[in-house]
Amino acid sequence: MIHDKTHQLLHSNDSKIVLLVLDGLGGLPHPDTGKSEMDTANLPNLDKLTQKSSGGRMQIIDPGVTSGSGPAHLSLFGYHPYTFEFGRGALEALGSDFDMQPGDLAARANFATLETPGDVSSVVLDRRAGRPNDEECKRLCDKLSQGLDGGVEGCEVFLLPGKEHRFTVVFRGEGLQAGLNDNDPQREGSALLPINPAGSGDERAAKVVNTFLEKALGILSDEEPTSSGKPANGMLLRGFSTLPQLQPFLERYGVKAGAIAAYPMYRGVAKLVGMEGLGTPANFSEEIDVLEENWNDYDFFFMHFKNTDSAGHSGLFDKKVEALELVDNSIERILALKPDVLIITGDHSTPCIHLEHSWHPVPTIIHSKLALPAFDANFSERGLMGGDLGVFHATHLVPIALAHANRFDKFGA
Amino acid sequence: MIHDKTHQLLHSNDSKIVLLVLDGLGGLPHPDTGKSEMDTANLPNLDKLTQKSSGGRMQIIDPGVTSGSGPAHLSLFGYHPYTFEFGRGALEALGSDFDMQPGDLAARANFATLETPGDVSSVVLDRRAGRPNDEECKRLCDKLSQGLDGGVEGCEVFLLPGKEHRFTVVFRGEGLQAGLNDNDPQREGSALLPINPAGSGDERAAKVVNTFLEKALGILSDEEPTSSGKPANGMLLRGFSTLPQLQPFLERYGVKAGAIAAYPMYRGVAKLVGMEGLGTPANFSEEIDVLEENWNDYDFFFMHFKNTDSAGHSGLFDKKVEALELVDNSIERILALKPDVLIITGDHSTPCIHLEHSWHPVPTIIHSKLALPAFDANFSERGLMGGDLGVFHATHLVPIALAHANRFDKFGA
Repeated sequence: MIHDKTHQLLHSNDSKIVLLVLDGLGGLPHPDTGKSEMDTANLPNLDKLTQKSSGGRMQIIDPGVTSGSGPAHLSLFGYHPYTFEFGRGALEALGSDFDMQPGDLAARANFATLETPGDVSSVVLDRRAGRPNDEECKRLCDKLSQGLDGGVEGCEVFLLPGKEHRFTVVFRGEGLQAGLNDNDPQREGSALLPINPAGSGDERAAKVVNTFLEKALGILSDEEPTSSGKPANGMLLRGFSTLPQLQPFLERYGVKAGAIAAYPMYRGVAKLVGMEGLGTPANFSEEIDVLEENWNDYDFFFMHFKNTDSAGHSGLFDKKVEALELVDNSIERILALKPDVLIITGDHSTPCIHLEHSWHPVPTIIHSKLALPAFDANFSERGLMGGDLGVFHATHLVPIALAHANRFDKFGA
Repeated sequence: MIHDKTHQLLHSNDSKIVLLVLDGLGGLPHPDTGKSEMDTANLPNLDKLTQKSSGGRMQIIDPGVTSGSGPAHLSLFGYHPYTFEFGRGALEALGSDFDMQPGDLAARANFATLETPGDVSSVVLDRRAGRPNDEECKRLCDKLSQGLDGGVEGCEVFLLPGKEHRFTVVFRGEGLQAGLNDNDPQREGSALLPINPAGSGDERAAKVVNTFLEKALGILSDEEPTSSGKPANGMLLRGFSTLPQLQPFLERYGVKAGAIAAYPMYRGVAKLVGMEGLGTPANFSEEIDVLEENWNDYDFFFMHFKNTDSAGHSGLFDKKVEALELVDNSIERILALKPDVLIITGDHSTPCIHLEHSWHPVPTIIHSKLALPAFDANFSERGLMGGDLGVFHATHLVPIALAHANRFDKFGA
């Protein structure tokens, strides 16, 4: 969030800002050693950088609140997710590089195994159809597209394959509102739920989705078991949503921003605030290639690094340590571009001992010529407690970075 | 305060949370030693616990604002006292274990010595009637009750004796609003003030209270000096108030909460937010007995320890040190119950060198398996600067504790 009066102070210059988000950065002490993942990793370059940076820890949503990655990124881009409605369906569609448009209705979907093929109120035997592989997911989406012949009830339907059992459905047509429940009963052994409209404006969408489900389950009713050993003869739809209207990043902060991420989901979140998605890098090294290639054309670069989060979810302490060390080894390439401001932070904590996201404030450094490093700070949770930035809210991150880039006039003078 | 969207994330589990409030916990350095009460005390158990806790300091109301105990407790229960009106009279009545009901009008009262017995505009000679003892206070309340024959102006009047000169008056009847001034001139040698209605809705209450005062001063006009050497022939009424309507703790946080306090006042504040008062323990050891006895029946326990505050008010540095050491010696009994989350904090600071409450943020620790202890933290004001919690607002305390107890879903995933 940027205050109107702060917004009026913005001016342009030729500074370059890099925001590097290490997904799930923060951790907790290992019970055997008392050291966190960041304490354990050997991070000479990041520690050196921390000693030339303002440091602190960033609160993402509200104290005690643990955030999913989508809303967490919006918050650190400065758009507090409590102040607008958005759903995961829309985020997933954006994340699949689908050109989602205002009015489109999206839902996250799983292929599932049903007890009674073709029945929209069947009992669910497996909520993930035993996890078919990515190719099977694509084949199933293509089969549905062909069977539906492009639409239901006068709406276009897009089926976007994802990883394993996951896909996204997007409906395009007039009058589709998102006030719909999930058909996912959340538990295996329970029956699929009917889709009901929440209000009177939602009736058309409910009709479209229910018709879609009837047809789709018919199309999938002849499915044999996939490589997973289970047939993908059903689907669960969750998080019906349309695009929220967000002020573009350029208008909000006066910087032309590009997003560099190996995972499409994170380019999707960035596009939601009007950043341009740059390239399709496969890993962090290729992300830095993309950064180098686009260096002259943007003011602000958002870069996303996934491995820290994945390791945290898996509880693989050594793997998270390794991921941090990979970043440490790569950081010199980013510094070689001489960014005026380099922010390194996370979107939330994912402590290995917790196997999940957590609410703990996220370690953050902002490197610039105007940084105020704490004595003895290092790149760790404890090493950044009580620094220049204290514990601050994520929505203040970009304004502070703009200040480090000398992009604000003085207020009241 | 808990945001609506945060509230929606709550779920239940079987975790146990203990909130131990050491009244007036925070202190300031002794001018001779440079050490605060907490620095001076020998607190091996609390220091050890701090090294396994998230730490920080808690701001109670607003920066620079010193709080009374009642509003301070409401704030740390998550009800910011700036967002609703409440008066000390209602708190005192609740604190006396009186079953105060919606619509009841309460005032704190002192017995006082008047220059002209029976005169509602007499000069006040002693605002505390030389401090009669508790038995005399009870005799005076009984005498008033009998003399009034239960009521004035169609209202019931309840007289609740307290410590020494203190008592509480509660009026029960139709149409009693609390827009009334105190009759206390605040200075000895000044005259009692007439009770005036603040607005048109307050006229009935003003009439009831003025009639009560006339009758009551008549009843007390024959009083001889008590054991204090001064007659209790007058009274000062302050803090007219009715009960504020507060959302019950269970509804707000999803936890069934019990309050354990040797002083009724603190059970009263807890009841105001819908906690159940548990037992009538006489001291901290008996409070822990009550905790043990009720352990299986509640999710959340508020415990109150008074001695730290009393010593602060008296400026007895050694006594505050001793009070802290008493808690240190008792803490193992609480830990033996294996609470999932143990919070130790205060409702405000009461530095011995100040003899009064102060605005300084209150040292706070939250112990759980997901705690992030700062290196070298100990249980003291300076030892908790810059910890995981930073300087945070009291109204965030319970949500953070609920997070440590795994009682929130993830937002947006």
